Amino acid sequence: MEFSAKQIAAYLKGEVVGNENATVHTFAKIEEGVPGAISFLSNPKYTSYIYDTRSSIVLVNRTFEPEHEVKATLIKVDNAYESLAQLLTLYEASKPKKFGIDSLAFVASTATIGQNVYIGAFAYIGENAVIGDNTQIYPHSFVGDNAKVGNDTLIYSSVNIYHDCRIGNNCILHSGCVIGADGFGFAPAKSGYDKIPQIGIVEIEDNVEIGANTCVDRATMGHTVVHSGTKLDNLIQIAHNDEIGSNTVMAAQCGIAGSTKIGSWCMFGGQVGVAGHIHIGDKVYCGAQAGIGSNVKSEQTIIGSPAYDAKGWMKSSAVFKRLPDMYSELNAMRKEINELKEKLNK
Amino acid sequence: MEFSAKQIAAYLKGEVVGNENATVHTFAKIEEGVPGAISFLSNPKYTSYIYDTRSSIVLVNRTFEPEHEVKATLIKVDNAYESLAQLLTLYEASKPKKFGIDSLAFVASTATIGQNVYIGAFAYIGENAVIGDNTQIYPHSFVGDNAKVGNDTLIYSSVNIYHDCRIGNNCILHSGCVIGADGFGFAPAKSGYDKIPQIGIVEIEDNVEIGANTCVDRATMGHTVVHSGTKLDNLIQIAHNDEIGSNTVMAAQCGIAGSTKIGSWCMFGGQVGVAGHIHIGDKVYCGAQAGIGSNVKSEQTIIGSPAYDAKGWMKSSAVFKRLPDMYSELNAMRKEINELKEKLNK
Amino acid sequence: MEFSAKQIAAYLKGEVVGNENATVHTFAKIEEGVPGAISFLSNPKYTSYIYDTRSSIVLVNRTFEPEHEVKATLIKVDNAYESLAQLLTLYEASKPKKFGIDSLAFVASTATIGQNVYIGAFAYIGENAVIGDNTQIYPHSFVGDNAKVGNDTLIYSSVNIYHDCRIGNNCILHSGCVIGADGFGFAPAKSGYDKIPQIGIVEIEDNVEIGANTCVDRATMGHTVVHSGTKLDNLIQIAHNDEIGSNTVMAAQCGIAGSTKIGSWCMFGGQVGVAGHIHIGDKVYCGAQAGIGSNVKSEQTIIGSPAYDAKGWMKSSAVFKRLPDMYSELNAMRKEINELKEKLNK
Repeated sequence: MEFSAKQIAAYLKGEVVGNENATVHTFAKIEEGVPGAISFLSNPKYTSYIYDTRSSIVLVNRTFEPEHEVKATLIKVDNAYESLAQLLTLYEASKPKKFGIDSLAFVASTATIGQNVYIGAFAYIGENAVIGDNTQIYPHSFVGDNAKVGNDTLIYSSVNIYHDCRIGNNCILHSGCVIGADGFGFAPAKSGYDKIPQIGIVEIEDNVEIGANTCVDRATMGHTVVHSGTKLDNLIQIAHNDEIGSNTVMAAQCGIAGSTKIGSWCMFGGQVGVAGHIHIGDKVYCGAQAGIGSNVKSEQTIIGSPAYDAKGWMKSSAVFKRLPDMYSELNAMRKEINELKEKLNK
Repeated sequence: MEFSAKQIAAYLKGEVVGNENATVHTFAKIEEGVPGAISFLSNPKYTSYIYDTRSSIVLVNRTFEPEHEVKATLIKVDNAYESLAQLLTLYEASKPKKFGIDSLAFVASTATIGQNVYIGAFAYIGENAVIGDNTQIYPHSFVGDNAKVGNDTLIYSSVNIYHDCRIGNNCILHSGCVIGADGFGFAPAKSGYDKIPQIGIVEIEDNVEIGANTCVDRATMGHTVVHSGTKLDNLIQIAHNDEIGSNTVMAAQCGIAGSTKIGSWCMFGGQVGVAGHIHIGDKVYCGAQAGIGSNVKSEQTIIGSPAYDAKGWMKSSAVFKRLPDMYSELNAMRKEINELKEKLNK
Repeated sequence: MEFSAKQIAAYLKGEVVGNENATVHTFAKIEEGVPGAISFLSNPKYTSYIYDTRSSIVLVNRTFEPEHEVKATLIKVDNAYESLAQLLTLYEASKPKKFGIDSLAFVASTATIGQNVYIGAFAYIGENAVIGDNTQIYPHSFVGDNAKVGNDTLIYSSVNIYHDCRIGNNCILHSGCVIGADGFGFAPAKSGYDKIPQIGIVEIEDNVEIGANTCVDRATMGHTVVHSGTKLDNLIQIAHNDEIGSNTVMAAQCGIAGSTKIGSWCMFGGQVGVAGHIHIGDKVYCGAQAGIGSNVKSEQTIIGSPAYDAKGWMKSSAVFKRLPDMYSELNAMRKEINELKEKLNK
């Protein structure tokens, strides 16, 4: 299907600059533009590409003013990235969805299955499990006994949801993620460690996305909770009894130790580590590879291991490179001071 | 089922303080207490909750003396955390276990299957594999050709055990863990890397727990070994030819490079990295995010990257924050010394 | 099967030192040698073992000259590690390969399957997927709709290849790896984050090996590319729109944020983190746990977080340990300078 700049601008409430009859049938990154594609420009790092892109149409922010001639037709919108998201969502929604329960799936006779679901070949739905309406469960996924999955949720292949856990509505779980494995709890004894059975559950609220191979452990007692709207990237560890606030985003390979509470609207870079039994406020921005060892108040920007104020850390990191020089200088100064003292005390 | 404080105290050899007829039927964290639940207090961080908890019974250490009135019935025991573990274990043991070989499982005709096993739907047991008595293998798990799993071992869904590997008795393997993938061995050649086939195996001894999505690679030759009683959390990497001692615990996302030997009774925080071809002694305590690059003697407490004595690292980390001030001060002092020298040499 | 030192030396174009009729039937590490085994010595750390090894034959570099008597027969070759690789490869190639499409596999009627393939029980091959000649797909692996796998590729159990992704020839994918899960892209809105649909794909070129539980995310638009000959260890994160050059090797748990381009013949230690939207040149050697936040030119050796020149970082790290002393000394010197000034100004 083809759409013209005019049609797209009307849908996005944008303004066409250039040929309003330019048509597109696909998407491309601005630096990989091809005729017939629509691209977008949002990150200023990529501005130089707009003058040479071969894409037919480019979405730009209303504030964008080209410095040279641009061959592509521009559509000016309030937020080019959001508008792109709208178009991509429209495009995705137009694709056919899988549905039906495959004859090669296993569905326990005591399970409750909603309307209009997809349950793929080799998927396993345990005893008394509940699957909501319009939910899709891809091949090789496992929904344990008494687990519950909401409506409109998309579970890709090889997802593991342990017994009794709860997944909300409109969630996306990517391949290999594990929801509800035992928390890491052991009591040291003389001959080894005694396992503390983990009898709690995991509760994933609505509109949560969980990345590939990410793990959310079940609580020792009570709930490990991921609140609504939160997005976890791949290979993340959420330990037992953690509580992750709403609309918090974490990049890949973050690890949160047990019984820690994180607020809402936080943003964590990749490979961040957080100690157990601490509280992190709302809107905390934490740089990649940080190590957070103690409570953090709301609206802080932190980095480093141990993590603290990001500006201070950046200054200290710059000085770190000069430490060998500082060390030499300190020794030189010591010698000179001793000489000065000797002279003065003569 | 309900139990009274008197009954529980008798089982745990504890002492009741308060109403010995108080009854419970479930467990709750002390800060989430509900009537009819038993809680415990061990970590002093949570002491304040004991005065307000709605739980009916709380397990406490014998040394605990309340500072105000406590509404709940207390049971004083030698170690509240261990006693909780005992009760939880009793509770877990009372739950029905899965058993039987599901008709949707694949079991090779040459495999040897013990008594009283559970092999779930879509589980795969390869040629000449051996599964011990009372062992449970959940759906979608893969036991490769000639692999051997001991008795009383619990293998959750989507576990992958490559050919020839050995799992001991009384182990727990969580979903998505991979035992025996090829070690990362390549010889550089002119046109690219030549793969070094990895013909060794993995040997997991008895009473080991392996977390979700953790990887233990097979040896190039010989064995990668995880000794008895060791507990590995989620998303850990154990490389080829590593040897991990008995009763060592590692938190999530640790990574141990190849041919390294780690002693027994070590404790590693999360996200620790360890270089290859080194030896780490017994009872080494290593803080989160440490990077261990060289041999470590027994009974050290280390942290940092590169890791060293934890007390020294904490002091240096405190000074790190003051580096910009130190740098300014150093420059100021240089200037002042030069002025002093000038004055004196006049 | 047994081979003599004479036969092996002929195959490897090596020179026998000792009994040319010594025979072997297995492989062993030099420190775990047994009669009838062949070992190798390449890393000088292990030289001391050659004098006591019980192995019958040891491969050594031509430059190796023993300092004492060696009981084993030596075979001198240009590169002992490469020669070992050759022998191991021969050994592996002699093992029987799996083949045939298991009756318990699911293969969509619209899929195209090459000659001489293995598709194991419970493997899933989606609509219009293409599987090349001699390719092996183990149980529980998932090849999504329209995905394409080349010739001579080995896909272990529980691998997930999302729709439309492309895997080259002669690749190895280990258990639990996830190719093509959605990139982590969200646009912040008032009530939460709007998902940016990820409509691009992943392209894995030829001769690539991907470790267990490693994730390579699909592009927002266009391609996430892993070029030919690259080897990724376990638990690695490659984000959307990344491009990883040819013959680059990354140790376990590295994480590369989105839209970053890495050159060819790079070597990354474990747990390295790389920021998004940056360029890293060719032959960049990066130490374990480094954090790369900005562009890196070719042929650099870097480490640290933030990463820079490795030699400088090692010097600074050494001084880091002395920071508390430096701080005390600085304060002492400040006092002394003030005293000197006072004296002089009197």
